[in-house]
Amino acid sequence: MEARAILEQYGITVDFAKINLVELQSDSLEQIARDKARSAFDSLKKPVIVEDDGLFIDALKGFPGPYSSFVFQTIGNIGILKLLNGYADRSASFRSIIAYTDGNNASISEGLVKGKISDIVLGGGWGYDPIFIPDGTRLTFAELKEEKNNFSHRRKGLERFAEWLLAVN
Amino acid sequence: MEARAILEQYGITVDFAKINLVELQSDSLEQIARDKARSAFDSLKKPVIVEDDGLFIDALKGFPGPYSSFVFQTIGNIGILKLLNGYADRSASFRSIIAYTDGNNASISEGLVKGKISDIVLGGGWGYDPIFIPDGTRLTFAELKEEKNNFSHRRKGLERFAEWLLAVN
Repeated sequence: MEARAILEQYGITVDFAKINLVELQSDSLEQIARDKARSAFDSLKKPVIVEDDGLFIDALKGFPGPYSSFVFQTIGNIGILKLLNGYADRSASFRSIIAYTDGNNASISEGLVKGKISDIVLGGGWGYDPIFIPDGTRLTFAELKEEKNNFSHRRKGLERFAEWLLAVN
Repeated sequence: MEARAILEQYGITVDFAKINLVELQSDSLEQIARDKARSAFDSLKKPVIVEDDGLFIDALKGFPGPYSSFVFQTIGNIGILKLLNGYADRSASFRSIIAYTDGNNASISEGLVKGKISDIVLGGGWGYDPIFIPDGTRLTFAELKEEKNNFSHRRKGLERFAEWLLAVN
């Protein structure tokens, strides 16, 4: 729904396809998304985009990065806050990768939002939203609610992808 | 070298092959190892074993589990100790999966060592060895040095595999 609303503004229509895809284990979000897009195209035989995202914390050498989902399910936000205990540097970024392929053309578009990790869990949102404060506000993604979309890494990635797609067509 | 020494006792000879294999992203060590063994067989056309292992901490819902290597490279042992701060339950297990395939037959053999996470880093060994105390001792894997092999999850997995292989042949 998020992708549809954003891409609509560029005259691009998109449908959701539920397919089980195996995911590579890689420290590179790009590689994971590119490989998934190729598998999705092989199974659908239609142009596809695949989105993959992750939270990268500078003081933790990019942890949880490509394994953000597993880390959230195990140690959660409380775990992240514990790990950052005692670190002055709480800077982090949320990265979204949009991988596209239509069998001939392929592209990778990235959306990045810089920010920092909050001291406590703030707001009731999903995933890492309650602990991520994007630059330019004092609120977490969770507290920002609908306003989050103005900062969203996913929106940025989708917009870049749309611009690329319109340029090559 | 470790595998060769152990399998030799069963009359099984084994060579090391360096191949670049992509690794699945999965919460299941078995699935990762099985898939890698299949890829290795496809590329070598010879019977292969692939070993994958992980540290599973009970209080952290199995974290770092299949992503033990990435987690070690980012938050390291200090990160694990921080995460366990305040937990009375420090129980953990080291699991080793040996996946075998020769194109017709396939097997998965598991070696498991139960133990607990130490309060501080003890000994200068590799990976999580300085924070894992196997049941039956008061020393970490790192402090145990050569004696570690008596407790090793990898040895157990390889022995089970050897017994299976001799039984089916």
